[in-house]
Amino acid sequence: MRIDLLTLFPDMCETVMAESIVGRARKKGALQVCCHQIRNYAYDKHSRVDDCPFGGGMGMLLMAEPIAECIDDLVRHLGKKPHLVYMSPQGTVLTQKKMKELAEHENLAILCGHYEGIDERIIDRYVDEQISAGDYVLTGGELPALILADGVSRLIPGVLSDDSCFEEESHFSGLLEYPQYTRPANWRGLQVPEVLLSGHHANIEKWRREQSLLRTWKNRPDLLETADLDEKDKRYLAALCEKERDSSANESK
Amino acid sequence: MRIDLLTLFPDMCETVMAESIVGRARKKGALQVCCHQIRNYAYDKHSRVDDCPFGGGMGMLLMAEPIAECIDDLVRHLGKKPHLVYMSPQGTVLTQKKMKELAEHENLAILCGHYEGIDERIIDRYVDEQISAGDYVLTGGELPALILADGVSRLIPGVLSDDSCFEEESHFSGLLEYPQYTRPANWRGLQVPEVLLSGHHANIEKWRREQSLLRTWKNRPDLLETADLDEKDKRYLAALCEKERDSSANESK
Repeated sequence: MRIDLLTLFPDMCETVMAESIVGRARKKGALQVCCHQIRNYAYDKHSRVDDCPFGGGMGMLLMAEPIAECIDDLVRHLGKKPHLVYMSPQGTVLTQKKMKELAEHENLAILCGHYEGIDERIIDRYVDEQISAGDYVLTGGELPALILADGVSRLIPGVLSDDSCFEEESHFSGLLEYPQYTRPANWRGLQVPEVLLSGHHANIEKWRREQSLLRTWKNRPDLLETADLDEKDKRYLAALCEKERDSSANESK
Repeated sequence: MRIDLLTLFPDMCETVMAESIVGRARKKGALQVCCHQIRNYAYDKHSRVDDCPFGGGMGMLLMAEPIAECIDDLVRHLGKKPHLVYMSPQGTVLTQKKMKELAEHENLAILCGHYEGIDERIIDRYVDEQISAGDYVLTGGELPALILADGVSRLIPGVLSDDSCFEEESHFSGLLEYPQYTRPANWRGLQVPEVLLSGHHANIEKWRREQSLLRTWKNRPDLLETADLDEKDKRYLAALCEKERDSSANESK
């Protein structure tokens, strides 16, 4: 897979994409990432890429032409049109499901807005989909684009050291992850739960599953609606609900 | 305000936090950002900070002690405990409301996990709240932490050039933003909507508001439930719903 980032901050993006798992995957050739400077396609002598919005209002917009030329140049170079995502608060909110879907593309290009946004005609003419990292306002699209690139990269075969190792992670099973502990067993007076030291694999599995269910039920009950639950899970959740009903009934007495 | 990032990748975080609006705000003293290397608090000679999870399983966990010493050192240096956020898929999903709430703290510290996560006892003993950038799996907590730091920074007075300029932005009014256009009025055959060239401010305002409502209604109807709507907005939305009903009734004929 090849990911192209179109941005006003290619050096910053390159620094992030050179680190850790993504950086190592690029070195071993499992993944290609290229960062492109939109400003290189400015056509005035001051390399200006922004202008005031028609109709008035504060802030500046990225002009259509430099972005379009940056995309056109990329298409010429690749010999085909990549799947082009524009990071924008107007887009669909990013989820793990969307990450998986995007990881299927052979060529993914991510356009980062900056300032107040970009000329809408770029979206009309070039953009395949708009994606938002979440419901918040940021300085630019770079961090959301890097999140997308990072999350998609780790789904590509050969990027993580073991294909199976991402399967257990949060949001794959649709539940929050269970608590984890490492040495020492007693740290500053806090003990690791007994069961994890028992070596009894079935009990450990049961405890972890129940902890995942408990956390999800407490903190993100919305996830339970779509999570993959078996009969045992459902019984455990029903018992949690009953316990809560009992305790609130006692309180109201 | 001062933001401290506790991470295994302080140089990468520093590079991001030196750019653009946040970088300029730091230079003029409106904001202080410090990035701390957790590995500096490792206590073995190989600077190891991770270990296998108790109870088995793939991946490595960040050990409690180096993180704790990094936090302890920061508390000593600040002379008080900062509000400590741990970025984790287990946390509350980040929203603009949470950004505003966090921008009220004088000292905000953000702990970035890496590998499979951190020893749960750090969360029990030190962490004030867990926040997730969104429902997806990433290589580490650095990008979510940078998103949090960026979003919070722009809410601090003096960081954006004009205090009023963030008020209009997406997610402040609870609606998606209207389309924006800049010169030229005719770009590669695509015209800017007539009304934006008219100079008629009331009409421009009306068009923009309706475009915001239309987009939100189409792409993020969930936001309409909490958006700040007046009677005119409600009439416009009611008309949209009626139009849709009519067209689907015609289709089914």
